[in-house]
Amino acid sequence: MLIIGAGPTGLFAVFEAGLLKLKCHLIDALPQPGGQCSEIYPKKPIYDIPAFPEILAGDLVDNLMEQIKPFEPGFTLGERAETIEKLEDGSFIVTTSEGTKHQAPVVVIAGGLGSFEPRKPPIPNIAKYENNGVSYMIREPEDFRDKRVVIAGGGDSALDWAIYLSEVASEVSLVHRRNEFRGALDSVEKVSELSKIGKINLITEAEVVGLKGDNKLESVVIRHGGSASEEEIKETDHFIPLFGLSPKLGPIANWGLEIEKNAIKVDNSYDYQTNIPGIYAIGDVNTYPGKLKLILCGFHEAAIMCQSAYQRIYPDKKYVMKYTTVSGVNGFDGSKKEAKREVVKSIN
Amino acid sequence: MLIIGAGPTGLFAVFEAGLLKLKCHLIDALPQPGGQCSEIYPKKPIYDIPAFPEILAGDLVDNLMEQIKPFEPGFTLGERAETIEKLEDGSFIVTTSEGTKHQAPVVVIAGGLGSFEPRKPPIPNIAKYENNGVSYMIREPEDFRDKRVVIAGGGDSALDWAIYLSEVASEVSLVHRRNEFRGALDSVEKVSELSKIGKINLITEAEVVGLKGDNKLESVVIRHGGSASEEEIKETDHFIPLFGLSPKLGPIANWGLEIEKNAIKVDNSYDYQTNIPGIYAIGDVNTYPGKLKLILCGFHEAAIMCQSAYQRIYPDKKYVMKYTTVSGVNGFDGSKKEAKREVVKSIN
Repeated sequence: MLIIGAGPTGLFAVFEAGLLKLKCHLIDALPQPGGQCSEIYPKKPIYDIPAFPEILAGDLVDNLMEQIKPFEPGFTLGERAETIEKLEDGSFIVTTSEGTKHQAPVVVIAGGLGSFEPRKPPIPNIAKYENNGVSYMIREPEDFRDKRVVIAGGGDSALDWAIYLSEVASEVSLVHRRNEFRGALDSVEKVSELSKIGKINLITEAEVVGLKGDNKLESVVIRHGGSASEEEIKETDHFIPLFGLSPKLGPIANWGLEIEKNAIKVDNSYDYQTNIPGIYAIGDVNTYPGKLKLILCGFHEAAIMCQSAYQRIYPDKKYVMKYTTVSGVNGFDGSKKEAKREVVKSIN
Repeated sequence: MLIIGAGPTGLFAVFEAGLLKLKCHLIDALPQPGGQCSEIYPKKPIYDIPAFPEILAGDLVDNLMEQIKPFEPGFTLGERAETIEKLEDGSFIVTTSEGTKHQAPVVVIAGGLGSFEPRKPPIPNIAKYENNGVSYMIREPEDFRDKRVVIAGGGDSALDWAIYLSEVASEVSLVHRRNEFRGALDSVEKVSELSKIGKINLITEAEVVGLKGDNKLESVVIRHGGSASEEEIKETDHFIPLFGLSPKLGPIANWGLEIEKNAIKVDNSYDYQTNIPGIYAIGDVNTYPGKLKLILCGFHEAAIMCQSAYQRIYPDKKYVMKYTTVSGVNGFDGSKKEAKREVVKSIN
């Protein structure tokens, strides 16, 4: 099965599929698994995951990754699913933003609120420098080693990356429109300290309004205090605007799926299949009467969906459900977990 | 809401109801919450609870009890829901086997495979001594303090209670048809030790075949080796046959609910309501096309059901779902859990 979206629902689908001996590959636009939980709020507690009175979103993802490890899922990260093609044999080919092609008999969209697209600052020629000095997301911090970096933004991402890159880059500037930062208290204080000792060049009440450079970014134009007269040109190798991510259904919206309120309509009375047979949608990305966008609902939808996908892949086999407590879990990696068996033992 | 069944699904329903500020009371035939997980396999690992690569069934119940604590559920344990009556105002009265009456605007059946009924040995006059010397389940071990007790059975329950009561009762006999016991290795060995030092009177290849006593149990007839000639009369205060529990839908089957394959039909396309408006069925007790009897499915059904129950109880209110990560959890006991808030802090 090809799963689009590696958030909690997509990850748990790997487990349920694994119990049915189905192998999964996941595609996600973000550079790591976990979806929003990893990217947006890894340190925030969630209180409504069943049997966890409290769990940090990042720990939830770690636990799911451990749970699915025996089923050896494949990952294509940092690439967005762009197009889908149905072949004559009923299988699908999905092509990503980087041109990678994946073929599978079943496609499961577990795309959450959509792929997270960075909010871009309104700088006229910014598109020219994308992948050429401008990055909206940091995939590999080492790319910035010994480089001059200008970060823009006033939230946790901007603070955390400024702190991190202060040990990697040759020069880090942090540009923010206000004096006030919105983030974890310790991050704000750390940036303040690093600024005092000159490890971060803090430029507040200022904005990057222009980009210059012939073939690649060479400098940014920083406007102070909102007045056009006070502009400063700052040489840099990289400009990293971190103004948050906003989810967009994106190219999936053009796959011929029935869409309602920015979500994919599915048959919740049976198997969470979309209007295209063989394509399922589970988790926050789908909609149906009474839908709740809760992680725990995505887990259920994943389990139900797998049974139907199994029937599609093996129309002639009858699957008999076994309980993990009774039958254990057999990993594709040869691992086996099972309950200690009762012994039958003579006493006399 | 009145919840019938205090297994994992019924317990989690308390949490989801609590988020909607609905208060719950649970009824269960077993003497403790947790359903099968507590009664049948508390020490067995479950592998398919999302985000728990492995969790003991008993720990799952403990976690759920902790998670719902802020919502102060009421419990009526050791009583079986027997009859239901619908009042003119649309609310229900459920009466238990002990005659306790509970009234609520919504009834949620989370009854699992049914109420667990003890398997009774085929001793002709055994019914005469029920609650009068014969117990099929141990609710309060202190009832046996300084009493003579005969336990029958060869599984974990018989072994574990023989060990436990050897410290409480004045005399414990364990009668089993074979020399071999089927249970955890350490339990078998412990019984063997206690037998050697005379703390348990082990009577194997034997069976209790008769009960004697005028108004209450006074003695049991033990037959050795299957031959009628070798019978022994043993004076005792209590006879506790522990031959396992078998689930039965029980009196609920007569409530006018649509039943299919020993389960209650519900509308899975919307809210898991039964054919009787105001009565819902969630977890293993219900059935619908594609139903999977998994704990994680019961969790989802509980969440969805609560939204519909809320609308029934407050037809004029519109509930806007909030995420626990954003809004925290407000207990009825005044407790509050919430994520650390971001600070807005000035640096310069």
